[in-house]
Amino acid sequence: MEQKSFQDYYPDELNYCYGCGRLNEHGLQLKTYWDGDETVSVYTPKSYHTAIPGYVYGGLIASLIDCHGTGTAAAAAYRAENREMDTEPAFRFVTASLHVDYLNPTPLGTPLEIRGKVKEIKGRKVIVETTLSANGKICVRGQVIAVQMPEHMLKSNTTT
Amino acid sequence: MEQKSFQDYYPDELNYCYGCGRLNEHGLQLKTYWDGDETVSVYTPKSYHTAIPGYVYGGLIASLIDCHGTGTAAAAAYRAENREMDTEPAFRFVTASLHVDYLNPTPLGTPLEIRGKVKEIKGRKVIVETTLSANGKICVRGQVIAVQMPEHMLKSNTTT
Repeated sequence: MEQKSFQDYYPDELNYCYGCGRLNEHGLQLKTYWDGDETVSVYTPKSYHTAIPGYVYGGLIASLIDCHGTGTAAAAAYRAENREMDTEPAFRFVTASLHVDYLNPTPLGTPLEIRGKVKEIKGRKVIVETTLSANGKICVRGQVIAVQMPEHMLKSNTTT
Repeated sequence: MEQKSFQDYYPDELNYCYGCGRLNEHGLQLKTYWDGDETVSVYTPKSYHTAIPGYVYGGLIASLIDCHGTGTAAAAAYRAENREMDTEPAFRFVTASLHVDYLNPTPLGTPLEIRGKVKEIKGRKVIVETTLSANGKICVRGQVIAVQMPEHMLKSNTTT
């Protein structure tokens, strides 16, 4: 049986995110999985996701780190409660803060591996540290501070 | 005569950036202008640039801040030399570091105004502080540390 990604567990009505929503046909549809205590996503940019020719656009990289971070935060929150991701109540995180350091130019035309580690999980806040690598070389480091989505936002959108 | 944006001055061979390249037909084609000592871009997200329904995707916001920052850095570098943007040598900046604080959810369906100020310009480095507003309310604050593109990257791409 194929492993389901974190994003496959998001409630349908919250699964339209341009970066990782399974139901956003225009989006990137990033998929994230556990790999031991780390999380991993792999994404291959399109040819037009370019910055200068031959290199990946930094805004796309920021997007991958963002969605990898919120996905990791949700998965970590379930793990902290020893719950599976298909149990209630559903956890969904939004980004409070995003930081990206572009260490090396990221080559276009090869899959990018995004790996995350939970640095801190406390109350409604999860801090996720991320690397993005191409051909085994780390090109970018990122950090996402994710916070659990307020219930009123969740509810206002599930009732519309 | 219509004012030309910063990006309209980028050399053609470096004008394919997904965020702001005039020649990237799949991209966002952000345009940035001086407004006194500040810089301003306006972008209206597409309906599919959503995070959760009704709100703008954070990765898109990061992209807008990124390109607004590198564009502002280039324009500021010309101003520091009292040169017009159509004079040689051409300045083009890349992002070393990007920081975004999402203060309030950004509503979808309205133009977003991105405003930048140069916090520091020193050697090849320019630091740009940015706000992103919707309907006159600041939703996001960003900072870009931009560095002038190394000549060898510029040359290697203009000769291919």
